[in-house]
Amino acid sequence: MPRVRVVLVRPQSEGNVGAVARAMYNFGLEALFIVDPQCELGLEARRRAMHADGVLANATVHDELGTALGGVDMVVGTSGVKTENEKKFGRIAITPREFAEKISEHEGKVAILFGQEDFGLDIETIRRCDLLVSIPTSEKYPIMNLSHAAAVVFYELFASGADLWHSEHAGKMEIDRLAGRFGELLETIDYPEHKKSKTKLMFRRIVGRAILSNWEYHTLMGVLKGAITGRAQEEDETNDDTIDQA
Amino acid sequence: MPRVRVVLVRPQSEGNVGAVARAMYNFGLEALFIVDPQCELGLEARRRAMHADGVLANATVHDELGTALGGVDMVVGTSGVKTENEKKFGRIAITPREFAEKISEHEGKVAILFGQEDFGLDIETIRRCDLLVSIPTSEKYPIMNLSHAAAVVFYELFASGADLWHSEHAGKMEIDRLAGRFGELLETIDYPEHKKSKTKLMFRRIVGRAILSNWEYHTLMGVLKGAITGRAQEEDETNDDTIDQA
Repeated sequence: MPRVRVVLVRPQSEGNVGAVARAMYNFGLEALFIVDPQCELGLEARRRAMHADGVLANATVHDELGTALGGVDMVVGTSGVKTENEKKFGRIAITPREFAEKISEHEGKVAILFGQEDFGLDIETIRRCDLLVSIPTSEKYPIMNLSHAAAVVFYELFASGADLWHSEHAGKMEIDRLAGRFGELLETIDYPEHKKSKTKLMFRRIVGRAILSNWEYHTLMGVLKGAITGRAQEEDETNDDTIDQA
Repeated sequence: MPRVRVVLVRPQSEGNVGAVARAMYNFGLEALFIVDPQCELGLEARRRAMHADGVLANATVHDELGTALGGVDMVVGTSGVKTENEKKFGRIAITPREFAEKISEHEGKVAILFGQEDFGLDIETIRRCDLLVSIPTSEKYPIMNLSHAAAVVFYELFASGADLWHSEHAGKMEIDRLAGRFGELLETIDYPEHKKSKTKLMFRRIVGRAILSNWEYHTLMGVLKGAITGRAQEEDETNDDTIDQA
């Protein structure tokens, strides 16, 4: 799974979905997630995707946003109606270029969300975003076509030279550490001996399946440590590897 | 007539023409010239133009490129197949961002040319361009949709903050000077007295109708001066206003 994924939330036009797939592939992106599509994803989508038909064929369709954001460290919303959303969102939208700079500095997994053609992202979704990106446009007509907006954002990401493919995510070693700490927790709470091994295996399978980001790994490690010692950690677990190194 | 015009050369898809009109209006551009369209410009074009239907309605259709470039100081080609065209073109294509910087420095009228969807601009047209712009894309799939490429170029122009509307072009004073010098030429060549006035008026009408750029004005002044003195001027007429100031 590459580092940057594109999430279309409730797209209404299959032509737009295909056009977004094409723009993704033009700028080196391939992971497309489609949430609750309001249209067919058939011939017209494939026609507009052109040689990015593989991006379209490998796209995953999700009933709700949550499952499309699994393993993501940074959720980025896009918005055409800048001032209105800034008011709702309570903070200032950044430009695609500023966003591209942030991506260069950030090492985690990123989801870029595009809302439906007529309304954009709803307020709940925007609140869920870590960043809001808005393309500077003419006041006369600020509403861009979905795939045009996507092309501009992808163009900036590509032009920044940021690595859009590799992220630091929790690998086998981290999962071993998590399972180990989970085992410690079972000891601490006097978990029945005959169930221990099965429950540890179950936990390992769950976190393995979820493909944890580094941030999620460190957070879970912190919670488990807190559960074992009986108090939440004040320090940032990210900078506290003493137990793992012991 | 605004400073920057968009010229679509032999577009094949009316949907693309409409989508380009929309992207233009999103980024503050309104002058659309369409050369030898290979498609209808009807319902689908208007549907895709959305609220930029005025841009589409005011677009002018031309049989050939020449008339679409009247009064233009800088002709800018766009190309998706970078290396191939660099070879043909014999010079390096610049990025949309570099182009936007050039526009900020340049005061004249600019035409941005986009070729037909499958082949791009032909080699003769590319040779005619003063600049060639190419969008950096993934090597896996460098060919962008026409309106996506247009949106990215317009986005950079808008983001640069360059004035896309006002250019220095030859006004009434320059036309008076041209007509004056044309009159001198008629004296020099012993033009029949009874035809002089009518011919001077004709010349004034022609140059008035053509809406000359500053560059065209200075070039014509230089040619007339050369015709009067019997030798072409070595100096750049742009920096030689001695006769006009006399």
